[in-house]
Amino acid sequence: MKATDAITLSLNSLWVLVAAILVLLMQAGFAFLEAGSLQSKNAGHITGKQIITLAISSIVFWAVGYGVAFGDGNGFIGYSKFFLSGIPAGYDSIFFLFQLAFAAVSLAIAWGGFAERAKLAVYFIFGTVFVAIIYPVVGHWVWNSGGWLFKLGMQDFAGSTVVHLQGATAALIATLLLGPRIGKFVDGKAKTFAAHNIPFVFLGTFILWIGWFGFNAGSTVSTGVATSGYGQFFGYVALTTNLAAAAGALGALFAAMIISKTADIGAMCNGVLAALVAITASCAFVEPWAAIVIGAVAGAFTYWTSIALEAKGLDDPIYAFSVHGISGVIGTLSTGFFAAPKLVAIAGVGKAGLFYGGGFHQLGVQALGVITAFVFVAVASLIVLSIIKATIGLRVSAEAEKAGLDISEHGAYGYGETEGK
Amino acid sequence: MKATDAITLSLNSLWVLVAAILVLLMQAGFAFLEAGSLQSKNAGHITGKQIITLAISSIVFWAVGYGVAFGDGNGFIGYSKFFLSGIPAGYDSIFFLFQLAFAAVSLAIAWGGFAERAKLAVYFIFGTVFVAIIYPVVGHWVWNSGGWLFKLGMQDFAGSTVVHLQGATAALIATLLLGPRIGKFVDGKAKTFAAHNIPFVFLGTFILWIGWFGFNAGSTVSTGVATSGYGQFFGYVALTTNLAAAAGALGALFAAMIISKTADIGAMCNGVLAALVAITASCAFVEPWAAIVIGAVAGAFTYWTSIALEAKGLDDPIYAFSVHGISGVIGTLSTGFFAAPKLVAIAGVGKAGLFYGGGFHQLGVQALGVITAFVFVAVASLIVLSIIKATIGLRVSAEAEKAGLDISEHGAYGYGETEGK
Amino acid sequence: MKATDAITLSLNSLWVLVAAILVLLMQAGFAFLEAGSLQSKNAGHITGKQIITLAISSIVFWAVGYGVAFGDGNGFIGYSKFFLSGIPAGYDSIFFLFQLAFAAVSLAIAWGGFAERAKLAVYFIFGTVFVAIIYPVVGHWVWNSGGWLFKLGMQDFAGSTVVHLQGATAALIATLLLGPRIGKFVDGKAKTFAAHNIPFVFLGTFILWIGWFGFNAGSTVSTGVATSGYGQFFGYVALTTNLAAAAGALGALFAAMIISKTADIGAMCNGVLAALVAITASCAFVEPWAAIVIGAVAGAFTYWTSIALEAKGLDDPIYAFSVHGISGVIGTLSTGFFAAPKLVAIAGVGKAGLFYGGGFHQLGVQALGVITAFVFVAVASLIVLSIIKATIGLRVSAEAEKAGLDISEHGAYGYGETEGK
Repeated sequence: MKATDAITLSLNSLWVLVAAILVLLMQAGFAFLEAGSLQSKNAGHITGKQIITLAISSIVFWAVGYGVAFGDGNGFIGYSKFFLSGIPAGYDSIFFLFQLAFAAVSLAIAWGGFAERAKLAVYFIFGTVFVAIIYPVVGHWVWNSGGWLFKLGMQDFAGSTVVHLQGATAALIATLLLGPRIGKFVDGKAKTFAAHNIPFVFLGTFILWIGWFGFNAGSTVSTGVATSGYGQFFGYVALTTNLAAAAGALGALFAAMIISKTADIGAMCNGVLAALVAITASCAFVEPWAAIVIGAVAGAFTYWTSIALEAKGLDDPIYAFSVHGISGVIGTLSTGFFAAPKLVAIAGVGKAGLFYGGGFHQLGVQALGVITAFVFVAVASLIVLSIIKATIGLRVSAEAEKAGLDISEHGAYGYGETEGK
Repeated sequence: MKATDAITLSLNSLWVLVAAILVLLMQAGFAFLEAGSLQSKNAGHITGKQIITLAISSIVFWAVGYGVAFGDGNGFIGYSKFFLSGIPAGYDSIFFLFQLAFAAVSLAIAWGGFAERAKLAVYFIFGTVFVAIIYPVVGHWVWNSGGWLFKLGMQDFAGSTVVHLQGATAALIATLLLGPRIGKFVDGKAKTFAAHNIPFVFLGTFILWIGWFGFNAGSTVSTGVATSGYGQFFGYVALTTNLAAAAGALGALFAAMIISKTADIGAMCNGVLAALVAITASCAFVEPWAAIVIGAVAGAFTYWTSIALEAKGLDDPIYAFSVHGISGVIGTLSTGFFAAPKLVAIAGVGKAGLFYGGGFHQLGVQALGVITAFVFVAVASLIVLSIIKATIGLRVSAEAEKAGLDISEHGAYGYGETEGK
Repeated sequence: MKATDAITLSLNSLWVLVAAILVLLMQAGFAFLEAGSLQSKNAGHITGKQIITLAISSIVFWAVGYGVAFGDGNGFIGYSKFFLSGIPAGYDSIFFLFQLAFAAVSLAIAWGGFAERAKLAVYFIFGTVFVAIIYPVVGHWVWNSGGWLFKLGMQDFAGSTVVHLQGATAALIATLLLGPRIGKFVDGKAKTFAAHNIPFVFLGTFILWIGWFGFNAGSTVSTGVATSGYGQFFGYVALTTNLAAAAGALGALFAAMIISKTADIGAMCNGVLAALVAITASCAFVEPWAAIVIGAVAGAFTYWTSIALEAKGLDDPIYAFSVHGISGVIGTLSTGFFAAPKLVAIAGVGKAGLFYGGGFHQLGVQALGVITAFVFVAVASLIVLSIIKATIGLRVSAEAEKAGLDISEHGAYGYGETEGK
């Protein structure tokens, strides 16, 4: 290998490892967002569960999931590279860690739909199946060069569909099968359970915002060394990501002020996340102004769908399906409208969008990807969760739910000096 | 471009992006420092406000502020590069994010003076003006190669004046116009409002300490590839930064033990920050022993001024003017004394200080920069805040202030299960 | 210097600085793990103490400790490079910061044994001696190319013995000299003091997990540029580290479910840490499957020893000796069994382990290192702490301990609005 090639490989390895660390950090983001938004009696369980999520993901994705997603196989599934085939090369080890972090994020999103009422055992069983099979199959379709959606030129740069829509779809199925939390609906009207710790909600949101630089810009898996043409593309991706997040905060905040007459902090935080979810597919393909539009629309629209779905009787405790599912769809479809030819050429995937004279082709590919991913994950999750429901059961007893999962599932309160007294 | 030059550009891009992420992380530092130090009834507002800060800064600095600071123009103001002129290059995108993070830090510092009593709308209005015009004008003077203070050779490596003194000056004006919080002074004596969460104060301080490695060492905007001479200068800057922070902690702690007979944790944390503020200008110009002296003096002196200004009737809730303003001045002036010839040659800005035989020249330049920046920001802030005060008003009602901004401005308590019961 | 060599030096410098920042971040991990696991009346003290730890370490390791560890000298101690000899080179500055972060981690571990009952002054005195002399002496033995254990080929890649066993041994001596906390043993039976904040325990654990990527993978002090052979070795080290942590979480959780019939979150968190401690020595030498075995065994065994030692009357408040001491020994000895020839060749230290036909040689070297380090630190700590005990005293008064160290040592409650009312 030439010396400059060897250095470039090390440089890119360093960037991908830094990005992997940022994405792994998002586990803490989900833990604090979820714990802070929900009731204190479940705060120990929720945060502790995040360790379990990363632990299961690490072992299962190493043993099986990575091979299904990135192994050689056919257009639908991979079947090699299980257990990383022994002692992997340095760069391959890092690429694995980066992809593991994505799988763990998708699973963390799914847990939103299980919150405050699922049995601890469910997390182990569903988590294992999700990381071993469900998540990597769709990952194979879109990101493996042999995958059928990859070959169609689907634009999902960092995973609005692969990561976010998948997790959110599992969350939706869980929410439907588990049913609402006790006391959520009184006479058919949704009751608000007060967030027990807004500083934690902020912390979670902020960690996710920061972690998303790794998520999106890291998905270049390169520092873009270029002796001619456009170099350092990861920087541009970081720029659109940040602009979208900012617009999402303001979009959701203004939506809350208009719809609910309140500058709701939780809504603003979800707006940041919705925008980040939406820009995840499109960050590499759209211009800065379009990133702002996509972020603002996702932030505002998600606030509306959160309220609307809750009013319809859906108890999705932290609005996982709105924030990651509906915004995941918005983001995936957005490139069908906004993908700019210059950026499509740099990123090298798919074609320009409708607004740039690309016609309906790319929009069609994006829609096909969204629909097939949603259907696959919904059916697979329904099967797995139905089997669990029919055997060991999905939900803790009413007594345990009222006492809180901290004491009922883990034997200790999350705030041991003040609770249970 | 030669292959080695292309790699170097990517390597430097990676470092500046990592540094930008560290500086963005400082928003969480300010959020927890401020929320933890103040009353629980405002903790949701304070942390949520930090999302607003970053959101406004991201959009406004992109649209306007960056062009004012780094665009071409005259010695006083820039007027190009608005909206980053479309699709920026990768490195330019990253440099923008790095500079955006600095602008957002300056704004976060300013908010200290508004804490616990300003209307939410004020944050939107003043924040927009500050990031679009006030902050970037002084940035242009000092950091744009066409700026008048840059041409005089002012040494403000990472912004003791540009970032910290500016924010602190705005905080001071806000404090003066808003007046003290209800109940702060009883019979002319300052009452202590107990910090509601010291672990949060620690978390905020520690995040800021860590983030400062990006702030100062990142201001090299380079990994210092050197085939001859002094390479990897960013490492040296990180060293002086850390030594100063350590000395500031001990300086402030001992000052508190001597003056107030207590090992005050909040004072020690402010000492860390004061030292970091002071070493911000000087980190690239001073020897390790001098960094320790500068840090210790800033830490101890800031403790004294915090108490002294409060005794004079100034209610600056988290001592923003002492920590960032007075220490900003100390730091900026310090290079006039301590700048070492060898380091000045490496950094390539200004001349050696008084203690190294450089005479009074550099000290004069530093003083001129401090004075003009202070006057400009004070006058500009006074004008903007006076207009707001005369129109929509700066301060919430007494009733809202007593209830806390969480419930009065955002419609929900920060700790929703325990407050308001 | 050739251009490619200069770039490689800058690239490696960047990686080591990033790693140093990750390891420094671990101070916040220890702060939240310890504060969350213990009583709220000491939470301000515990977190504030972490600032003191880093401040003392920074100054003392710069002045003395680094020279003892990495200076030239004989096989037992170094005696040059004090005060870093003036203005160090950029890479040397970064290497210092990386090593400083390790020393501060070792000291943070030691504090576990002092928790909730030691005088504040003890932290200053013992901390200074530990960082100046005790820690760097063993560091010199193992990591200085002139050290006697280095020359024997001891495999302690990132410091299971140097960092963890040392800190844990000091913690053990402190625990023995201080005696149990008031009320810990009632009629000879250990009473559980409820963790006051499990989300903080999670936060601490998670930060440590993330920080460990810097700790272990950073110990390559290189990005492994290789034109032939195995490159990017730091990636492989990150992989084994993460697999071990995951296995440790599950190992400890299952141990708790079997032994105590509860899915104990604190136990699981300690399992993560125990596994990380164990893989610290062995991360560069063992295959992925072995990393999982080492992590799972360390996680499960540590849970058992925590309980067993407490039942014997040892009040080690956060089980520092089990998690960092016993696991440190497990990890150091593990390479004697599991070191794989291919990886030993890449890492370039010592020989293959027993299970790979290497015989008992390496196991003997590892055991010798463990025993001599333990004895040295135990004796040195015993001498220093006995002198303190005989003069100013180690322990606060019973009254102060009952009131909590926040109010008694620092004059303010950690949660100032709710405590002391």
